[in-house]
Amino acid sequence: MTVLYEGKAKTVSTTEDPFILEIEYKDEVTAGNGAKHDFMTGKGRLNNLISSEIFMRLEEKGIPSHFIGRVSETRQRVKKVSIIPLEVVVRNIAAGSIVKRLGFEKETEFVPPLVEFYLKEDALNDPILTEDHIKLLDIASQDEIDTLKNNARRVNSTLIDVMGQMNLKLVDFKLEFGRDERGNILLADEISPDTCRLWDKDTNENFDKDVYREDTGSLIDTYERFYNKLEETK
Amino acid sequence: MTVLYEGKAKTVSTTEDPFILEIEYKDEVTAGNGAKHDFMTGKGRLNNLISSEIFMRLEEKGIPSHFIGRVSETRQRVKKVSIIPLEVVVRNIAAGSIVKRLGFEKETEFVPPLVEFYLKEDALNDPILTEDHIKLLDIASQDEIDTLKNNARRVNSTLIDVMGQMNLKLVDFKLEFGRDERGNILLADEISPDTCRLWDKDTNENFDKDVYREDTGSLIDTYERFYNKLEETK
Ligand SMILES: Nc1ncnc2c1ncn2[C@@H]1O[C@H](COP(=O)(O)OP(=O)(O)O)[C@@H](O)[C@H]1O
Ligand SMILES: Nc1ncnc2c1ncn2[C@@H]1O[C@H](COP(=O)(O)OP(=O)(O)O)[C@@H](O)[C@H]1O
Ligand SMILES: [Mg+2]
Ligand SMILES: [Mg+2]
Repeated sequence: MTVLYEGKAKTVSTTEDPFILEIEYKDEVTAGNGAKHDFMTGKGRLNNLISSEIFMRLEEKGIPSHFIGRVSETRQRVKKVSIIPLEVVVRNIAAGSIVKRLGFEKETEFVPPLVEFYLKEDALNDPILTEDHIKLLDIASQDEIDTLKNNARRVNSTLIDVMGQMNLKLVDFKLEFGRDERGNILLADEISPDTCRLWDKDTNENFDKDVYREDTGSLIDTYERFYNKLEETK
Repeated sequence: MTVLYEGKAKTVSTTEDPFILEIEYKDEVTAGNGAKHDFMTGKGRLNNLISSEIFMRLEEKGIPSHFIGRVSETRQRVKKVSIIPLEVVVRNIAAGSIVKRLGFEKETEFVPPLVEFYLKEDALNDPILTEDHIKLLDIASQDEIDTLKNNARRVNSTLIDVMGQMNLKLVDFKLEFGRDERGNILLADEISPDTCRLWDKDTNENFDKDVYREDTGSLIDTYERFYNKLEETK
């Protein structure tokens, strides 16, 4: 196995099969485009368990993803895709950057949920894109953009349902998609409290990486509690 | 006449007719959301003459605007509209913020021309909006957004044509639109070298407010030359 890509939270390696990759979830956590950075024993395991479980729940609902199977506590096998360099963000409730950037009042509900695209480009600080930008930058066609939006909305419905059973509100989350060798668009990367903003339905307590970003609690305890709740919904 | 609104470049007053306003173009110039600010004798006259002439050219092409008529060297009468708080930007060539924000190489040609929407809100620094944001913020309906884009593209074609006769490239420009008392969408505000980025076809020399923003020449001389060229195309 050769390391193909060493990211901020995961390491991607080749396998004996050219169409299959192995993703190792690392005990690392970063925020603010790398401005904050720490090691936390157990984080890789938790994110791998959570992400695997969520991809399986999505598959049950007919939403295709890169996920093949979990192969150890910290590793999963996935279909190799060519990542579309977009962060597809779905927002159900106003929080974070959209409050600061556009002046929405925090906790405004978005009906229908808002889908946004950001360029995945750290050097430019992941700027927001319109659909016309995406086409001009040759990142995706209009048909593909429509597929991304539809799939993002379907993921949203399933996640709202699962998180709802955990007494959590799904505020917003980020997805990545890629193209497989035949050009089919597949959900890829990871879905976990690293990539979702989640609030307790009763207390609005954070169940996500914001506890680390804002230094309001133990990330490992929070993710462990999240994982236990998720297991209870089986 | 009562002053309704005192802006950065113009003063808007009521008239004896409740559906008609008078706009006085001021001898003031600002840049960077008010960071730079100067008085320049003759600027109001030039912008009023230029803007009036351009609205007339657009009317000849069947593009409706608020413009009724010029009533003095520095004043024009317009139909009163309720301004839609968007800056509608059309880009033919990459320059300015889109180069910095999205990494387009300067002078990249946009085919088809790019239409962007920015929230007209100084306090938020005029952030870029997607069509979904515009609908969520209740600024305009999808039908209205489509009208704005179509009208902006038609204005672009006419301006490219006029400026082309002046040996100028129309790089980009900003429009504002409003709704009249029956909800019809009308082109409003001003079209002048204050609101367009214009380059000499041969030398790429600026024929617009960038000479002031970047301190590369006399704004009044530049606008005077622009106005003389425009008159020659009659
Ligand atoms: N199925 C896949 N095929 C190829 N690359 C993938 C796949 N799933 C995720 N990736 C990419 O692998 C990397 C995962 O590592 P991560 O630590 O999240 O990186 P980053 O720091 O770029 O966010 C990301 O660049 C992600 O886009
Ligand atoms: N036909 C119109 N009816 C009502 N308001 C208008 C019309 N045309 C332009 N305006 C508004 O009048 C103001 C013009 O003054 P200006 O100096 O450009 O203001 P600003 O500093 O807000 O850009 C702007 O707020 C513009 O939106
Ligand atoms: Mg990542
Ligand atoms: Mg103005």
